[in-house]
Amino acid sequence: MADEKIEKIPYSLNSKAVADATKYWLNKRGVTLEEIAELVIFLQQKYYPNLTMDECIHNVEMVLSKREVQNAVLTGIQLDVMAEEGKLFSPLQDMIENDEGLYGVDEILAFSIVNVYGSIGFTNYGYVDKLKPGVLQRLNDKTTGQIHTYLDDIVGAVAAAASSRIAHRKQAEREIELDLPHTPEDREEAARKLAEYDETPE
Amino acid sequence: MADEKIEKIPYSLNSKAVADATKYWLNKRGVTLEEIAELVIFLQQKYYPNLTMDECIHNVEMVLSKREVQNAVLTGIQLDVMAEEGKLFSPLQDMIENDEGLYGVDEILAFSIVNVYGSIGFTNYGYVDKLKPGVLQRLNDKTTGQIHTYLDDIVGAVAAAASSRIAHRKQAEREIELDLPHTPEDREEAARKLAEYDETPE
Amino acid sequence: MADEKIEKIPYSLNSKAVADATKYWLNKRGVTLEEIAELVIFLQQKYYPNLTMDECIHNVEMVLSKREVQNAVLTGIQLDVMAEEGKLFSPLQDMIENDEGLYGVDEILAFSIVNVYGSIGFTNYGYVDKLKPGVLQRLNDKTTGQIHTYLDDIVGAVAAAASSRIAHRKQAEREIELDLPHTPEDREEAARKLAEYDETPE
Amino acid sequence: MADEKIEKIPYSLNSKAVADATKYWLNKRGVTLEEIAELVIFLQQKYYPNLTMDECIHNVEMVLSKREVQNAVLTGIQLDVMAEEGKLFSPLQDMIENDEGLYGVDEILAFSIVNVYGSIGFTNYGYVDKLKPGVLQRLNDKTTGQIHTYLDDIVGAVAAAASSRIAHRKQAEREIELDLPHTPEDREEAARKLAEYDETPE
Repeated sequence: MADEKIEKIPYSLNSKAVADATKYWLNKRGVTLEEIAELVIFLQQKYYPNLTMDECIHNVEMVLSKREVQNAVLTGIQLDVMAEEGKLFSPLQDMIENDEGLYGVDEILAFSIVNVYGSIGFTNYGYVDKLKPGVLQRLNDKTTGQIHTYLDDIVGAVAAAASSRIAHRKQAEREIELDLPHTPEDREEAARKLAEYDETPE
Repeated sequence: MADEKIEKIPYSLNSKAVADATKYWLNKRGVTLEEIAELVIFLQQKYYPNLTMDECIHNVEMVLSKREVQNAVLTGIQLDVMAEEGKLFSPLQDMIENDEGLYGVDEILAFSIVNVYGSIGFTNYGYVDKLKPGVLQRLNDKTTGQIHTYLDDIVGAVAAAASSRIAHRKQAEREIELDLPHTPEDREEAARKLAEYDETPE
Repeated sequence: MADEKIEKIPYSLNSKAVADATKYWLNKRGVTLEEIAELVIFLQQKYYPNLTMDECIHNVEMVLSKREVQNAVLTGIQLDVMAEEGKLFSPLQDMIENDEGLYGVDEILAFSIVNVYGSIGFTNYGYVDKLKPGVLQRLNDKTTGQIHTYLDDIVGAVAAAASSRIAHRKQAEREIELDLPHTPEDREEAARKLAEYDETPE
Repeated sequence: MADEKIEKIPYSLNSKAVADATKYWLNKRGVTLEEIAELVIFLQQKYYPNLTMDECIHNVEMVLSKREVQNAVLTGIQLDVMAEEGKLFSPLQDMIENDEGLYGVDEILAFSIVNVYGSIGFTNYGYVDKLKPGVLQRLNDKTTGQIHTYLDDIVGAVAAAASSRIAHRKQAEREIELDLPHTPEDREEAARKLAEYDETPE
């Protein structure tokens, strides 16, 4: 983070470019929103049996719309790509190429993603990262020549964050249904959801 | 976090009760929203000279509307109150009562607050926690008999989180003003703000 | 954390008192070092089939000798005890008593424990916290009247941290065995270990 | 972090290579241990007026001997170097090149460094990162063509971690001097120190 106020070249961050690059790179590295949503289903079906794929995809999209998440996704994929091209300096190249057990920066980036929806997602992240269901198994296949040391953890973290987001929203929906007093923040989306308002673009 | 689905006593979290308790306890412990907003002004005026108190208060309120923040505020104040009443077991009582330098759980809770708006707030938190301007100086006065070992850090963290929130919103406003393409998430509030829509209840 | 240098009452932290209280309270709340060590075996046997209980107990002890860990253990158990006695203010009492899913301060404290040995332990923590093997199942039994909302997460975190510590030490032992150049930090304990030096008091 | 046990190419992490690369790259990017030690003096002189440069350098070295710290240092410098060479993909290139205010992955890596010695270092990190004394001012000079978006935060974090380490050691020394009961962990180094044992290689 910079404090400087004057820059030589007029630099201006375009938030849409950051968001678009996030989607582009996830896709280019072979990960679809549907696959991440399936991890969410895997994690949450036990608690919310009626959870739909559409709902999960929406929540994954909302997680991916956060700048903090976009920064982590882009940085992690960049390091994976560089490692795949053999362009990192030694021994960082070896550590990322071999998904070294004592190298934990990938988990640190993953945690910054989970954290966006709070600590309740820590457990879910650890769980899918250990079990490696669905897309995570493919990303961990070391025979392909592809390197997904970061992406593997990032995808699990996005799914965990989306699960946390769902837990918060479900509580809001429940309170509205029961006509309980509730806090305004969660209310808006929950209300829209109950009214089956089309929220796709949000 | 619990996974159980059946409970002896029908327990149901009321999110409004949690939000109301947060406001109540901050107030009861002598901290006003205005004082937290002044810390935000202190931190952000350099970057946004036109920042108003109303804007800062609004952002502090938005931070305090987050469940993760409410949990940290309530837990920290509870420990302060217990320490003030001498009800903690030894040596925890001594450590919290004396704001022991090697005891850092207060900072851990503070960080869970800052984190809600991402890592860009870490620096601001450390800065006010060290300088102790405004309300933080009063909370650190050890001659009053009051114990604010947690509250001190919590208030700085809420101000830092509000500063991060402002940085994100200002970017969104700038993009809308410049008619740049922008991401939907930040857009809603920014648009309302530019239209001087009354957002008080949100 | 305090910066003040003069205090009314001559307060002096005794690190041994903090360490002793940590052991005392773990024991009083019904958790033995052996039970935590069994979680470590559960997590690490796959990677180190020859791992012994003694080795795991030693590593658990080393984790528990860290001040940061002691602070988290004592603070968490204190909140559990207060909740069990019904002494917290509402709605914090209800949230901790019922191990509320949207309350995540217990996980935040757990993470400060895991973090002491770095991010490589995040996954192990999440995994045992989800599966709840051994002692974690007992701590999660909601029919006993006891409240272990914090302790449950803390015990899993200590086991995950001990697992990370083992991973670091095993690497050091391997390098010494292979007569590789190695860094001094891990060397001392590894050398002692290979020489079957009695390291119990350390 | 990887769980796989069989790898195509016999890869074996050499911890000394990682440690050496850390020193090499810090040096190559123009940062000396003395400069980091000066930040430690800046942060700690108020509390320990007799603190020597040698002591600070030793503590900086100890921080840099931790694998977690080495991983963060190497990863951050790698990203700085790539950005300096213009080799990152857009818009990550722009964000790191311009030390974008809404990009916080540099702070996330910095925090993983501070965390190694616990939460008591958070405040010190934020403080130097904001004030930018000594070497931090030079690293923030945007007119040189060099990019130190990560290194800037990393150096501040190493100084903050060294400060935390000193706080822990000073407590141990004090307890030994007062012949108080103390915990074994901190005892060894403190005892050596008091005996003016040459601890340089450790």
